[in-house]
Amino acid sequence: MKIAVLPGDGIGTEIVAEAVRVLDVLDLKFEMETALVGGAAYEAHGHPLPESTLKLAKESDAVLFGAVGDWKYDKLDRPLRPEQAILGLRKNLGLFANFRPAICYEQLVGASSLKPELIAGLDILIIRELTGDIYFGQPRGRRTAVDGHFPGAEEAFDTMRYSRPEVERIARVAFEAARKRSKRVTSVDKANVLETFQFWKDIVTEVGKEYPDVELDHMYVDNAAMQLVKAPKKFDVVVTGNMFGDILSDEAAMLTGSIGMLPSASLNSSNQGLYEPSHGSAPDIAGKGVANPLATILSAAMMLRFSLNQPEAAARIESAVQQVLASGLRTGDIWSEGTKRVGTREMGDAVVAAI
Amino acid sequence: MKIAVLPGDGIGTEIVAEAVRVLDVLDLKFEMETALVGGAAYEAHGHPLPESTLKLAKESDAVLFGAVGDWKYDKLDRPLRPEQAILGLRKNLGLFANFRPAICYEQLVGASSLKPELIAGLDILIIRELTGDIYFGQPRGRRTAVDGHFPGAEEAFDTMRYSRPEVERIARVAFEAARKRSKRVTSVDKANVLETFQFWKDIVTEVGKEYPDVELDHMYVDNAAMQLVKAPKKFDVVVTGNMFGDILSDEAAMLTGSIGMLPSASLNSSNQGLYEPSHGSAPDIAGKGVANPLATILSAAMMLRFSLNQPEAAARIESAVQQVLASGLRTGDIWSEGTKRVGTREMGDAVVAAI
Ligand SMILES: CC(C)[C@H](C(=O)O)[C@@H](O)C(=O)O
Ligand SMILES: CC(C)[C@H](C(=O)O)[C@@H](O)C(=O)O
Repeated sequence: MKIAVLPGDGIGTEIVAEAVRVLDVLDLKFEMETALVGGAAYEAHGHPLPESTLKLAKESDAVLFGAVGDWKYDKLDRPLRPEQAILGLRKNLGLFANFRPAICYEQLVGASSLKPELIAGLDILIIRELTGDIYFGQPRGRRTAVDGHFPGAEEAFDTMRYSRPEVERIARVAFEAARKRSKRVTSVDKANVLETFQFWKDIVTEVGKEYPDVELDHMYVDNAAMQLVKAPKKFDVVVTGNMFGDILSDEAAMLTGSIGMLPSASLNSSNQGLYEPSHGSAPDIAGKGVANPLATILSAAMMLRFSLNQPEAAARIESAVQQVLASGLRTGDIWSEGTKRVGTREMGDAVVAAI
Repeated sequence: MKIAVLPGDGIGTEIVAEAVRVLDVLDLKFEMETALVGGAAYEAHGHPLPESTLKLAKESDAVLFGAVGDWKYDKLDRPLRPEQAILGLRKNLGLFANFRPAICYEQLVGASSLKPELIAGLDILIIRELTGDIYFGQPRGRRTAVDGHFPGAEEAFDTMRYSRPEVERIARVAFEAARKRSKRVTSVDKANVLETFQFWKDIVTEVGKEYPDVELDHMYVDNAAMQLVKAPKKFDVVVTGNMFGDILSDEAAMLTGSIGMLPSASLNSSNQGLYEPSHGSAPDIAGKGVANPLATILSAAMMLRFSLNQPEAAARIESAVQQVLASGLRTGDIWSEGTKRVGTREMGDAVVAAI
């Protein structure tokens, strides 16, 4: 088994280092190889996703990813910007199924913007399609408008699209996941306006017939954005497209108040996966040793479970994290009165010790 | 001056009736004419936006709109569904500028999901472009995929697009609005992924140079969805496209906890406008006389201010609503311990009396 370790930019290197230490202490049989990605790769090789990094990722069973991006790359041409690396990895590895849990840990309820009774015990799984939709649809670009409100004017355009097999496979992923949970799926669409999402809704409904034990409902994306705020605990598994999933999974993550705790997994059809924290590269605190490594450590646990077939090792990490939280250690992002503030390294130490 | 009154479906008729009573008592010189729209129009004329209704709306200075929609129309072909009426009105009247205030009234802070300190005093103005983007972009439909992940498969697609003048005019609306407020605009885009929104960002930046007194910043839509939850009061004027605006304006409205209080205005370039509550037709409580008419009454106030050039009359309505809230009257949606629960009609009576 081989893991590609891609720390990336900003706090990426610090948090991935802790996850690697946690993996090391488990003493499992796999190889880890590190490579540059994002801004760091651009600096060294002139491209955010160099051929060598992509090759390593492809030949590995899993990618452990930190974060990419920094304000200083904002002026680069789009294809050279750090976030293109993540889009490139998703596309080239065919990572169509993104798992974004939004969990509110008992000890961290106070960190949420929401009233405790609305958020305590939250455990949603957002499944976002990750290789289709308007993210990758062609054609796209700039041109002269031939119709619309201002024919003859300069315009820019993108193409939203989903094909039947793309919707079918992500729907199956959602129904299968729901079977292991509370057997409820909410499919989020905008079928009242978009052809793509009427099609999406039709197909999810069809696939749902193969899972009569799973309850399926449909919700418009605007309503979903509202219901997440109003009563997040009403959701269990949510499945949606790439663009809506981008927005809703971040909204749901922030509802918990502890985005520094939330892992994610992006899988392809052979369970090869990319694992990364739900938060970003936080250039403002990079290098200060204060970032929360737990989302990355929990991403490593997801990796063990989904791609490396080591569910016991995954569970060991997860319970170690629970223990550390229970012991009162907190990085700055989740710190509150009465708990002990620690840095990235100390937090990693504590998880290692608990294992 | 002429107002087209389109109550629509569900609670639409009840809440619009109260707004009409409030307008009547102001004793201003305008004509009101009522017509069917949405499901009600479909039942009577076989179309949610009959020619006669569209004609009335076009020749009026303003449209006072209730709400449309009911589960029972879900099985109709898309062009016949109630919500097509609202899309048709926007398109045919050229209502490109949608104003969606998200205000948290002092007395209603407790109704929010958010902790009081995060939401008390919230006053955001979301300006959503309303006639462009993927809502109306052509081509759209179903076809056989020629490329992508599954060439040969059935697929559905839509076109996202914005032309330069469309972005310029909505940007100007936002900067002008900001000048009358705290002189800050946040433009929300997804320039890191979409050609359309890189173009959007470029043009908003250009237009911003004409408004050196207004501070402009840019935010990705996923981050905006998070920041709205984390620190909504950091926003003032937010400007964005039709699709992102649909999602974010509903999220922001729900953050206040009192969506039954939030009006909206949709204007064209000659200040002709459509005014409607931010909430929907609520078929579950329709006909029970319990719906909150205040969002519709406040929409009538926006109408007086924006389309009918009667700012004093608008202010009279708004202060009457404030007075009624202060007196402790509440419809069910905003009721809390210690306040008096009233129905739609009594709430209307109270506003009329306060005027
Ligand atoms: C960086 C960006 C391209 C990316 C996305 O939009 O998918 C990010 O927001 C995410 O959700 O992983
Ligand atoms: C009913 C629907 C077409 C509409 C929209 O998406 O614009 C609604 O959600 C709104 O925001 O007014």
